[in-house]
Amino acid sequence: MDRFYAVIPAGGVGTRLWPLSRAAAPKFLHDLTNSGSTLLRATYDRLVPLAGERVVVVTGTAHREAVCRQLPEIKVADLVLESEPKDSAAAIGLAAAILYRRDPDIIMGSFAADQVISPDAAFQDAVREAICTAATGKIVTIGIKPTHPSTGFGYIRTGAALDVPGAPSAHAVVEFVEKPSESVAAEYLASGDYNWNAGMFVAPVALMLKHLEKNQPELFAGLTQIAEAWETDQQEEVAARIWPTLPKTAIDYAVAEPAADAGDVAVIPGTFSWDDVGDFAAIGRLNSAKEVDDVTVVGEGARVFTEGASGVVVTDTKRVIALIGIKDVVIVDTPDALLVTTTAHAQQVKSAVDHLKASGDTDVL
Amino acid sequence: MDRFYAVIPAGGVGTRLWPLSRAAAPKFLHDLTNSGSTLLRATYDRLVPLAGERVVVVTGTAHREAVCRQLPEIKVADLVLESEPKDSAAAIGLAAAILYRRDPDIIMGSFAADQVISPDAAFQDAVREAICTAATGKIVTIGIKPTHPSTGFGYIRTGAALDVPGAPSAHAVVEFVEKPSESVAAEYLASGDYNWNAGMFVAPVALMLKHLEKNQPELFAGLTQIAEAWETDQQEEVAARIWPTLPKTAIDYAVAEPAADAGDVAVIPGTFSWDDVGDFAAIGRLNSAKEVDDVTVVGEGARVFTEGASGVVVTDTKRVIALIGIKDVVIVDTPDALLVTTTAHAQQVKSAVDHLKASGDTDVL
Repeated sequence: MDRFYAVIPAGGVGTRLWPLSRAAAPKFLHDLTNSGSTLLRATYDRLVPLAGERVVVVTGTAHREAVCRQLPEIKVADLVLESEPKDSAAAIGLAAAILYRRDPDIIMGSFAADQVISPDAAFQDAVREAICTAATGKIVTIGIKPTHPSTGFGYIRTGAALDVPGAPSAHAVVEFVEKPSESVAAEYLASGDYNWNAGMFVAPVALMLKHLEKNQPELFAGLTQIAEAWETDQQEEVAARIWPTLPKTAIDYAVAEPAADAGDVAVIPGTFSWDDVGDFAAIGRLNSAKEVDDVTVVGEGARVFTEGASGVVVTDTKRVIALIGIKDVVIVDTPDALLVTTTAHAQQVKSAVDHLKASGDTDVL
Repeated sequence: MDRFYAVIPAGGVGTRLWPLSRAAAPKFLHDLTNSGSTLLRATYDRLVPLAGERVVVVTGTAHREAVCRQLPEIKVADLVLESEPKDSAAAIGLAAAILYRRDPDIIMGSFAADQVISPDAAFQDAVREAICTAATGKIVTIGIKPTHPSTGFGYIRTGAALDVPGAPSAHAVVEFVEKPSESVAAEYLASGDYNWNAGMFVAPVALMLKHLEKNQPELFAGLTQIAEAWETDQQEEVAARIWPTLPKTAIDYAVAEPAADAGDVAVIPGTFSWDDVGDFAAIGRLNSAKEVDDVTVVGEGARVFTEGASGVVVTDTKRVIALIGIKDVVIVDTPDALLVTTTAHAQQVKSAVDHLKASGDTDVL
């Protein structure tokens, strides 16, 4: 366990959660579950029992202050700042390269900052099994047992059980498959051979970098250069020069999928509940305990009055919000922007944001 | 025409238009038709060609400043302030008593401050006919030809044509009838004998007061005392002492209905379009020309973005409002309160306000 470092990529605006989540206040800086913690803080707290102080956060320079406010205990050296977004392969790859320079035997685990997981203990058990499995020379993804035939997630096809001490549920991964159609998703669910790909994985940094070098040599070379200058006088100069030139690609394409083809990937099927809070309908589900009549209310100091209404209200204002005779509505109330949609249309929020961007109304994005 | 005085009762919060209309900013102080004028100002302007400067406004003391801002030309003596609301019989009766003291031959016309009428010329023609008819010793109501079997208005049953010079459309009134059921309303519409009661009437002040004295002697006595002190040093003292003691009743019960029973009421069927802007669905209808996709937008500087949405947005903020995939929605956006309902539920807004009142959230009422 001492070889284990947690990496938290804290990127992504969470456009489907606009206007709550936006460039200046992305999803991971919000408390979307009324828990009293932001998603970032909850992710960190969930990892401390496994990693202690060995937690690296990768985020945009614009979020440095907000992240430091959320995680006052983090060391400056463990805060990796991106001057511009370069997708997950660069973000996670840079963390791997930096950790490799510290100790080539490190096992890293990557866990996005904007997901909701419970109970923590079941998650931690799965990560412990993943660490044991990773120590045998595997990239270990933590899958999620599907509860319905979702077309919104990629799937992991599970192979034979592996015989790993300390990891009784470890299995080989046959392949990663893209988001399926509904009928295909139903087949996956019925077969019992598939898990959702939640983008969580645990792996020796050396093995990560080996696959990255093979599949994305240019990216690997750039990240290595930045990592070599890390914690030296040249850190800022080298990062500023090289980072903007790096190719943008997802860690799935750059590492996970080719590694699976090479037989290097295992899976621990997670038994915890997991939600990537993909839209406001998810916020309704995750907070269903706090209802005013049939309306789920998220927001400190919310003043919501309902009559014959159902749906979700998310507010970061103190305004009185009255809902009358409107069903399955989604209302997101912020000081400068208001969204009104339905739970069924929650996924379309992204296109509204694109529309606002195109029309030049970028002050509220 | 020189004997004609217009009286504008500017009372009523317009609870069904909350949170736009509220105690501190009632309906008549809003521009609900994107015309550039508040309803009060538009009412005044519509009457000037008939009454010149002879316009009396009856309103609450709380609205004195706002009314003076809207009507800077009004004389102090023509602004009748109510220290507390006492319903329409007291408000209109006081105006009648004051005007009677000025000249017992005055013909008054009472027109609420919060109605939408067009075209003005057709309204003015009807009022001119009403004045001619009133001069023959009648209380003359201006009816509205029904366009649908409304259950929301009272009706006027029309009798025989009257032979009045200058008033070719004058008819006797058989009776006033209360808001009917839908089937009864349909019968009224089919018969052609009924007009909507829009609460507009023109009458000699002496005749008004005669019926008021007969039906509400206590109210009549109190109003006469206040009127006798009007424009004297005692005005404030007498009004402050007597007004709070006056009975609350509607002018319909105190004057119009008993006068109709006595054969003293006539009707001019109005051919103009008329709307009492009873709820937000009405605001949608009245502003249908200004649409973003299928959404009617009311509010200066509104920033509304829609995708597959329909309904009404009324805003007095500059916030971006995004509507996605929501139909027949009503959104009313103010700095401290937000209402979301549907056009079909627009009439229920009043009960939400009652609910807020009961729960102590009176700061936004």
